[in-house]
Amino acid sequence: MQNFKNYINDNRDLFIDELFELLRIPSISSQNEHKEDMYRAAQKWKEVLIKAGVDKAEVLETQGHPVTYAEKFAGDNYPTVLIYGHMDVMPVDPIDLWETDPFEPVIKDGKIYGRGADDDKGQSFMHVKAFEYLVKSDLLNCNFKFLIEGEEEIGSPNLSDFCENNREKLKADVIVVSDTSMISADVPSITTGLRGLSYVEVEVTGPSHDLHSGLFGGAVANPLNVLSSMIAGMTDSKGKITVPGFYNDVKEVSSQERELMAQAPFDEEKYKKSINVDALSGEEGYSTIERTGIRPSFDVCGIWGGYTGEGAKTVLPSKAYAKLSCRLVPNQDNEKVTQLLSQYLETVAPASVTVKVTPLHGGQGYVCPIDIPAYKAAEKAFEKVYNKRPVPFRSGGSIPIIATFEEVLGLKSILLGFGLESDAIHSPNENYPLEQFFNGIETLGWFYRYFGE
Amino acid sequence: MQNFKNYINDNRDLFIDELFELLRIPSISSQNEHKEDMYRAAQKWKEVLIKAGVDKAEVLETQGHPVTYAEKFAGDNYPTVLIYGHMDVMPVDPIDLWETDPFEPVIKDGKIYGRGADDDKGQSFMHVKAFEYLVKSDLLNCNFKFLIEGEEEIGSPNLSDFCENNREKLKADVIVVSDTSMISADVPSITTGLRGLSYVEVEVTGPSHDLHSGLFGGAVANPLNVLSSMIAGMTDSKGKITVPGFYNDVKEVSSQERELMAQAPFDEEKYKKSINVDALSGEEGYSTIERTGIRPSFDVCGIWGGYTGEGAKTVLPSKAYAKLSCRLVPNQDNEKVTQLLSQYLETVAPASVTVKVTPLHGGQGYVCPIDIPAYKAAEKAFEKVYNKRPVPFRSGGSIPIIATFEEVLGLKSILLGFGLESDAIHSPNENYPLEQFFNGIETLGWFYRYFGE
Repeated sequence: MQNFKNYINDNRDLFIDELFELLRIPSISSQNEHKEDMYRAAQKWKEVLIKAGVDKAEVLETQGHPVTYAEKFAGDNYPTVLIYGHMDVMPVDPIDLWETDPFEPVIKDGKIYGRGADDDKGQSFMHVKAFEYLVKSDLLNCNFKFLIEGEEEIGSPNLSDFCENNREKLKADVIVVSDTSMISADVPSITTGLRGLSYVEVEVTGPSHDLHSGLFGGAVANPLNVLSSMIAGMTDSKGKITVPGFYNDVKEVSSQERELMAQAPFDEEKYKKSINVDALSGEEGYSTIERTGIRPSFDVCGIWGGYTGEGAKTVLPSKAYAKLSCRLVPNQDNEKVTQLLSQYLETVAPASVTVKVTPLHGGQGYVCPIDIPAYKAAEKAFEKVYNKRPVPFRSGGSIPIIATFEEVLGLKSILLGFGLESDAIHSPNENYPLEQFFNGIETLGWFYRYFGE
Repeated sequence: MQNFKNYINDNRDLFIDELFELLRIPSISSQNEHKEDMYRAAQKWKEVLIKAGVDKAEVLETQGHPVTYAEKFAGDNYPTVLIYGHMDVMPVDPIDLWETDPFEPVIKDGKIYGRGADDDKGQSFMHVKAFEYLVKSDLLNCNFKFLIEGEEEIGSPNLSDFCENNREKLKADVIVVSDTSMISADVPSITTGLRGLSYVEVEVTGPSHDLHSGLFGGAVANPLNVLSSMIAGMTDSKGKITVPGFYNDVKEVSSQERELMAQAPFDEEKYKKSINVDALSGEEGYSTIERTGIRPSFDVCGIWGGYTGEGAKTVLPSKAYAKLSCRLVPNQDNEKVTQLLSQYLETVAPASVTVKVTPLHGGQGYVCPIDIPAYKAAEKAFEKVYNKRPVPFRSGGSIPIIATFEEVLGLKSILLGFGLESDAIHSPNENYPLEQFFNGIETLGWFYRYFGE
């Protein structure tokens, strides 16, 4: 392994060129117009994996977008790792806020800019390059399986079935995922918790057609006014979610664990500055890290209705829409919460409107124990590259399929993410620092070595 | 005048063809791309007026879109009427809800369909045809002035200056306007009150860029959640507007006048059916007619922010927007209310966001006395054509320029509208029943005769 660092340094441009080929494919899974791009992406991942040295690679159909699967057998006595990543990306709107073309990656100020640069093409690709070195250097001491899917950003609706139908193929000792972040570039961390998700769209209908707000205003319920009140009624002044039953399954984290969490380095001023806000806000009685790590949250992800163009059109619109999402803590059941949300929205609606709630996405939370072999190997790998022991950290994000893996395949996942808070994933100008990319490759290579020992 | 009805019947197709030429011009005043169309519209109105028999017609510049002015001198002993109408129309979105092209008018089920069919091309054009008959039949006993403007739907920002600069030209005894509705096709009414308007756009900014709702949700204020709460906080459960000071200048209407209003025919079931709602809603303690006629109202005319596309994108957006409008009763000052709205929105915003309020539109309310000669002439004209005495009626709508006319020119306006509630003005599938169009022409012809006597 003494040549690993040199190998990475010598091949920086090659690695970047290859990653850019992946980034140029607009593989937006949620938009039908990109259906063909999802196939192109799957094919490209197959090529990339073959080039890296797998025994076989294949593009496999699902009910939705295809997955790319590949494997390399090293030996019967070696443990098996299943690497999970995703080739699909988020939509790119608001497109006018991008400084460069989201699908024409560039390097600027030491960072790769482009949709998917971090989430998750850049991060998944690190495994491919770490694996390539181990193959080329004849250092392989794990059996490798790669599963790169195309529907993570829409909740992996078909991957559960895929796993059930391919239990034998996917047999492994642990799943390895790089789709999370580190606390900061100099504070390595391992994500030990993920939040679940419940996501619904609500449609409020008032009059059957748009009305003149002068002739009707004051006498007919305006669905935009009504929807605003319904949303406002979902939280109270203390930042608590007021949907009946919402906290029923939320386990309070022990004061001991909260004390440990408080030891993780966190610079509130820097955090506020990075997103340019004067004040933070959230549930009373919890710190910022706790608010995202161990507490559920409620966010309006989108809202629209009425006249949204230039100037002053007066109208009392027929319809109002919102996309509402809750992040959930591990003990909460996402389907139960989706039901609570639907019930609340339908119950509070006044008789003057009708309400339709459509569940769009959901997933369970996850907790990773810190005493499993994979965690210990990861700790050693981070120490090797960063010269620091990584901090166990509960992320506010959600990767619903991680809970499904445990349920269907009986496997724990280890979350080795190298993203940074400033990477703007899901946002305009998504980026991934080159330093994280190359350190990530190195850390993962060491992780596989230690795990196979 | 005994030939008037025949004249109208003999020329139905001609009148419709000519109106269609006006309707085909997409004269949307609020959208810059239609600037040239506003000139085309002004030119077309000039042609139409010349054809009808005016002495002179001209297109006059303003700081914004041009106006068309025309006049016909009948005699020194005759009173002078100034006909005010507008050639501009509302935007057409949501365009996909139109069953026919908004700018390619058609006749269907006895109605003219197209943007502006009622508001206000169809209604303004009735005056032209009534005038034409009086000229051709040598029955003119009023001096006529026509003022057709191009900025009514954006609040007539330049017409006040235009009036100040053209006091002499615009001298008249009364202003006649057809830009309102009747109670129903068989209940003729004259609009004796209009509400004022205060219209602002609010922009709420949270973080400087869109954030991942998992990693940040619960710890950073979401501007969509915040905006919803700000809007919800503007009314209470009794339908009262809670913006401090809002009702300060609202005069309570006497119980005597409220009793008179209650005698106007109003069929609540039919009203609800026409807009397809199960229940009405509004300020407690007031009837539907009172809620729009004598009470102010608050409507969200548009709201937007975050992800509004297909599927489930999770995001904690940077910005949220809404367009907010209040209809005001005559004694309320629109500029004062705009200030109250701005103050409220800026005051209630938490420290975690910034708020920008932009006033977009405003106008005063108006009351027309029922004892002026023009009102009495109008009463007679309606009785002649409809065989019923028209009901004085306070409309919920706003025509801000009417109050300006009184202020600048010292003239009262008489509001002789023939629109119906079902005309869908400002909405998709705007229409104007042929019966109202032809009865309107006839009523206006009689009105001018009676007024000149």
